[in-house]
Amino acid sequence: MTNIRTVTVLGTGVLGSQIAFQAAYSGFEVTAYDINAEALEGARERFALLAETYIAEVEGAPKTGGAAEVVSGTSGKAAATLTSLTLSANLAAAVANADLIIEAVPENLDIKRDTYRQLAKLAPAKTIFATNSSSLLPSDMAEFTGRPEKFLAMHFANRIWVHNVAEVMGTPLTDPATVATVMEFATEMGMVPVEIKKEKAGYLMNSLLMPLLGAASNLLVAGIAEPADIDKVWRISMGAPRGPFELFDMIGLMTPYNIGINGPNPEFARYLKEHYIDKGKLGMSTGEGFYKYPKP
Amino acid sequence: MTNIRTVTVLGTGVLGSQIAFQAAYSGFEVTAYDINAEALEGARERFALLAETYIAEVEGAPKTGGAAEVVSGTSGKAAATLTSLTLSANLAAAVANADLIIEAVPENLDIKRDTYRQLAKLAPAKTIFATNSSSLLPSDMAEFTGRPEKFLAMHFANRIWVHNVAEVMGTPLTDPATVATVMEFATEMGMVPVEIKKEKAGYLMNSLLMPLLGAASNLLVAGIAEPADIDKVWRISMGAPRGPFELFDMIGLMTPYNIGINGPNPEFARYLKEHYIDKGKLGMSTGEGFYKYPKP
Repeated sequence: MTNIRTVTVLGTGVLGSQIAFQAAYSGFEVTAYDINAEALEGARERFALLAETYIAEVEGAPKTGGAAEVVSGTSGKAAATLTSLTLSANLAAAVANADLIIEAVPENLDIKRDTYRQLAKLAPAKTIFATNSSSLLPSDMAEFTGRPEKFLAMHFANRIWVHNVAEVMGTPLTDPATVATVMEFATEMGMVPVEIKKEKAGYLMNSLLMPLLGAASNLLVAGIAEPADIDKVWRISMGAPRGPFELFDMIGLMTPYNIGINGPNPEFARYLKEHYIDKGKLGMSTGEGFYKYPKP
Repeated sequence: MTNIRTVTVLGTGVLGSQIAFQAAYSGFEVTAYDINAEALEGARERFALLAETYIAEVEGAPKTGGAAEVVSGTSGKAAATLTSLTLSANLAAAVANADLIIEAVPENLDIKRDTYRQLAKLAPAKTIFATNSSSLLPSDMAEFTGRPEKFLAMHFANRIWVHNVAEVMGTPLTDPATVATVMEFATEMGMVPVEIKKEKAGYLMNSLLMPLLGAASNLLVAGIAEPADIDKVWRISMGAPRGPFELFDMIGLMTPYNIGINGPNPEFARYLKEHYIDKGKLGMSTGEGFYKYPKP
């Protein structure tokens, strides 16, 4: 058992709010920080939605052989989690007693470095820092933390309560004891932890996913087959729940557009812009992408 | 409904025997051809195993909400299928009345071309020819068929009764009516048919799978993570039943070795040889590869 009890999550976007909720749901004392009252208002809404989702999908998950039993939300653990979360726009107060800070601020190296410069001064010496950055390497931030031996990356997947994997990746300066503590903490917060032995952009998850999505987009742009047919082949031949274009819709089409337009394959980005983005079809979040969805 | 009633499958290897069994199981009159009595003896064993598998996995599949009910094999459809199959080592007799020939002979262009040269003479004018080749393009065989307008590729996945997708891919010379007939036949034999609009090596299935497997092998060879950890991340983050190294074990390690050793990434092939192949660990079929399996 680790001696981590208090966890502060910086940033309450899609993943930040899920990480905070899941940690609190698992019994940790969690503070969610964001930059101002408006951002925290958004966080409150996300947490309320997460509580509903946990009630339906975690606590009300179908029992073996039976129909779904939905546990009442008013007395359940998800509802209790909602009231246990502390929200704060005061960075000094939010981190003053943190055993672990999980940083999920916007994916921009300057913003992250500036955050670590502040944390280096504000957080107590005991605090471990973990970045949830998807595309940046922790080595590019380590020197700003003031404690590179207590700094690493801890990467989560979207829909953390289902896709409960945590990729833990140190830098050459990270103390192995820090890695061990964070691996154990990950288990305590309900994750399956996986250690990455050398720094790798995209960790394991995106290193595997990006080539699959790239291959699918090449098939589409080359006119080999339709998105629904490509997805069908992948789902049936692999037994996978979703095909690549269903994944694009979940991720949102602006992400592959932004990655692709200045990347090695701008053709797919142009295809996305012309056929979808310019028509307001950005994926699941807008009700339509490669597929149509019920409005959220 | 198509006017295909009689189907001849050439080659009774892993996939050929599955295609023949599934077509017969779906009510077609099926002849399975192989080159000699010894090969047909192997086919008989494979068909008997397939009947057991269909009894357990298709007919005895778990009913919703209940435990698995295994249907008795002595009176069931799978047992009847076994007796309905005609086996033949006489090519002329095997194809004399075929509405459709599905060719699953060894993956070698010379063998395939020679097979089509013979079929061009032996098969009646009505017969449609379909190749199940995974890695060769149908265009490279079309001129030897004597009927390029009635020739296309029809590609199946291993474990056809679960992964029931058929990729249908014509050449520029294929009559669209032939494509339409084969798409409809695929449905009649229990497949989900998918049309590929332009010839593409690897069809959709392998065009998607190879980049994923390549990415996984790069992570391993670069020392980023262990096979079991890479698989874990893929399974959990994607909700997929198998990770890339579990797939390698299913495919058998000689296949990525043969593809890799003269390909763009010989490093993984050398890794496979040193750590697995030289020790007799060729994947699931030998009881061990990246993982251990109960002996078959």
